Amino acid sequence: MSQRVAVIGAGPSGLTSIKSCLDEVSLGETPEPGRSSIYRSLVVNTSKEMMCFSDFPMPADYPNYMLHSQLLQYLRLYAQHFDLLRHITFQTSVLTVRQRPDFSHSGQWEVVTENREGQEQRHIFDGVLVCSGHYTQPVSPLDQFPGHESFPGRCLHSWEYKDADAFRGKRVVVVGIGNSGGDIAVEISRAAEKTFLSTRKGAWVLSRMSSSGLPLDMTAISRLTVLLTSLLPRALVNWAAERTLNHRYDHRLYGLQPTHRLLEQKPLINDDLPGRILQGAVVLKPDLRGFQGSGLLFQDGTTEEDIDAVVFCTGYNGTFSFLPPSLCSGPGGDLNLYRYLYNTLPPRKTMLSKIETETKRNMKSYLCPRQAALHVDYIPYLDSLAEQVGVRPNILGLLLREPGVGLRVLLGPCTPYQYRLRGPGKWDGARQAILTQWERVAQPFRTRSTGPTTGLNSPAGLALSTTVGLGVEAAYIATDLGSTLILYCLHYGLGSLFFFVVKTSV
Amino acid sequence: MSQRVAVIGAGPSGLTSIKSCLDEVSLGETPEPGRSSIYRSLVVNTSKEMMCFSDFPMPADYPNYMLHSQLLQYLRLYAQHFDLLRHITFQTSVLTVRQRPDFSHSGQWEVVTENREGQEQRHIFDGVLVCSGHYTQPVSPLDQFPGHESFPGRCLHSWEYKDADAFRGKRVVVVGIGNSGGDIAVEISRAAEKTFLSTRKGAWVLSRMSSSGLPLDMTAISRLTVLLTSLLPRALVNWAAERTLNHRYDHRLYGLQPTHRLLEQKPLINDDLPGRILQGAVVLKPDLRGFQGSGLLFQDGTTEEDIDAVVFCTGYNGTFSFLPPSLCSGPGGDLNLYRYLYNTLPPRKTMLSKIETETKRNMKSYLCPRQAALHVDYIPYLDSLAEQVGVRPNILGLLLREPGVGLRVLLGPCTPYQYRLRGPGKWDGARQAILTQWERVAQPFRTRSTGPTTGLNSPAGLALSTTVGLGVEAAYIATDLGSTLILYCLHYGLGSLFFFVVKTSV
Repeated sequence: MSQRVAVIGAGPSGLTSIKSCLDEVSLGETPEPGRSSIYRSLVVNTSKEMMCFSDFPMPADYPNYMLHSQLLQYLRLYAQHFDLLRHITFQTSVLTVRQRPDFSHSGQWEVVTENREGQEQRHIFDGVLVCSGHYTQPVSPLDQFPGHESFPGRCLHSWEYKDADAFRGKRVVVVGIGNSGGDIAVEISRAAEKTFLSTRKGAWVLSRMSSSGLPLDMTAISRLTVLLTSLLPRALVNWAAERTLNHRYDHRLYGLQPTHRLLEQKPLINDDLPGRILQGAVVLKPDLRGFQGSGLLFQDGTTEEDIDAVVFCTGYNGTFSFLPPSLCSGPGGDLNLYRYLYNTLPPRKTMLSKIETETKRNMKSYLCPRQAALHVDYIPYLDSLAEQVGVRPNILGLLLREPGVGLRVLLGPCTPYQYRLRGPGKWDGARQAILTQWERVAQPFRTRSTGPTTGLNSPAGLALSTTVGLGVEAAYIATDLGSTLILYCLHYGLGSLFFFVVKTSV
Repeated sequence: MSQRVAVIGAGPSGLTSIKSCLDEVSLGETPEPGRSSIYRSLVVNTSKEMMCFSDFPMPADYPNYMLHSQLLQYLRLYAQHFDLLRHITFQTSVLTVRQRPDFSHSGQWEVVTENREGQEQRHIFDGVLVCSGHYTQPVSPLDQFPGHESFPGRCLHSWEYKDADAFRGKRVVVVGIGNSGGDIAVEISRAAEKTFLSTRKGAWVLSRMSSSGLPLDMTAISRLTVLLTSLLPRALVNWAAERTLNHRYDHRLYGLQPTHRLLEQKPLINDDLPGRILQGAVVLKPDLRGFQGSGLLFQDGTTEEDIDAVVFCTGYNGTFSFLPPSLCSGPGGDLNLYRYLYNTLPPRKTMLSKIETETKRNMKSYLCPRQAALHVDYIPYLDSLAEQVGVRPNILGLLLREPGVGLRVLLGPCTPYQYRLRGPGKWDGARQAILTQWERVAQPFRTRSTGPTTGLNSPAGLALSTTVGLGVEAAYIATDLGSTLILYCLHYGLGSLFFFVVKTSV
């Protein structure tokens, strides 16, 4: 039976939702709500082979990490390729989404929209997919800070921030060290006279660029790393990874050192922040305590005077204004979604218990319940959903039948194509997409010939040596522990001697 | 007998020249010539402890790498501290510097200056110190490119470049991958629609940030590294260092790979370029071949259409317009300076042979004779000059008498204070400056408390472990060679197996 489904939002999730619905049923027009807001310089922090739709690889010449405008271009290509545009109602806000009075047996929804002329319209749908994102309702803690009423400068939320033009020659404080906070502090520091970045917790900072300059997510997110991480004690993995990070720049020296361990919370992804700190262009400050005229007071008792602007990069509320509260918040008022996705399906009790288990596990990492409700362990989560749908790759079978693909699925980056190899939605191009994924990583670099690339010089070769390196490293980690202890003793020994000698000589 | 000396230029060399002259004799007013030109975002690529005057450490809270304006502030502090300003004649150009007719017995010079009102003045000096820099006469190869006359866009030299404002939304080609080329390409790429960076030779790219985030020059330029580099075969040092660099980002993959080895030429110092390449914001191109309407043709036959501007970062002529040609160019028309400094002193024959030896040695590294005439091996050059003056540190003596200072002089960064420990110009603060040099590196970072720093967590500790690491690395380099060979065989073996398996499975 043909059904009417509303898809709210036409971003990446919205588009692929439309396409999936089209694959199943025939669809009417769908409405589009308000948008989230981004700054002009925003570069995505997921690489192209990891973020693309599973049945539509990005053009080979696209850069590995792209500016938001190029990502939009890709969404347009996707919409065009699958002829989705005619299913989208642009410039239309969703006012309310409500279960119909007869929902218990019809399962139908009533959606009220408003078009650009302000005309309201009522629609009935058999299903609603909410794809409007959860970065739409900015959280500003301004009221918490005494003295904010008399601050003569400008206060804004990152949601309003577009570029650094307004901050030329100013003295600016950026509050919050999430990805937006890092990006915005770096950008403002190139225009402002002085830029302070205030953080309560600090952060582990990762570069988009992994070893050999390959995209971080492609070398870090593989089934092999999941396996190794789950086999080794978490403390050991944290220790080894933090040591590697600190070898690049010592987080303690740089004032970035957080109180939590690396794997406990989402790290900051930023290529430029440490360099800007080293150049004194971004100055780290502890937690903001309050305002004092045009000065800002910090937790350590220091004050920065004559501040012209404060940018709050303090995140978003994961709320959906058009949904009835009962559908988007659990007992504690927080978002609760079965498998982070649904509001219906299994009996309520089963769902709630599942949600509770998953949120509790996440709460160990994410201190804020709203965050905990929307973050997952990438591969295990995808695999468990894929299992349910019947598209989880059969690695053993692949290794036996098509070892080239199988090895890549096991050892290589967990690219989205892996979930198009079998089952519903199977795509014949998936194999080829997996076999050529490193090819598309290399393509955008090929603008100046640097001589022939042999197998080892190709990105696949480099990634392979990283993978082999990882294996070797894991195997030797015990040895490494031993030798590091010896080295540390040596360092300490020499260090003590050194300082002793200095002491006696002064 | 009191002498009159002209110091041309009041930058770092000019200021310290004035001070040295004051230490020796009493001085009249000195003229100041035109200036070189820099862009607004310029951050120096030498760290504060390595670039400071040997008897005037930079303020502890200065960042390790500073914006040009802060460096100027430091020069002002120095001039103020030693009361040099009253010896400088501002806004005055030097038109000519000539030997007087009786130069052979008087050794005197005639200097003609022009003040801001256009009035010429003639002065007699017993000595002239030329401190006006050699980045004043831009070299533009524009004429070499066919079709340049009809190019409708803007062509400029980096000497004219101030900031990227004029390039917003434009398509820009930057020619040349020296330090200016790298900086300017990166900055323009943040404003422009598309930025191409054309290079004939490519470059090895180094970050200002060394291991643990310490300043590169402080970990790289020490007597220990000079010793190790001179003991080990050059090919091995190149191989090991290039391998380390490529581990950060593969120069071949990134299109940066030069034809020369790392130690053969001055590397590019740039923290941002690789990241901008990865994001597709800077696109590398081979050598520029010519113009075709608004398009640019490159050596590999490719064309980039609709170019709005071309920025030539093609360096400077090391010429001094006010000097008679006989004093600033040798037989081949190139600059020749005895010990890279003087035009008089020992017999002409001795000097010319010394110049020839040194230039020939440099020519191995620097292809351009003008470059070869102005570049040196840092520590050996300083030591040989210091030897002549009598201020070369006596390391063995120091190790015996003051091992704390001695060890730092031997193993630590070769900071300028080392040449103030003894002999003429000896400064009592030198010892203390050496003992506290890492303290001043750490100071600017101390804006957010990250817990107590133990000996090992301090920059000195980190540097020590880098040094110890270097020693261990040097000791193990033979072993490493062996194990790397084994690893490479393993990689190749696995790689071949991998590709074989892929081949058979496709």
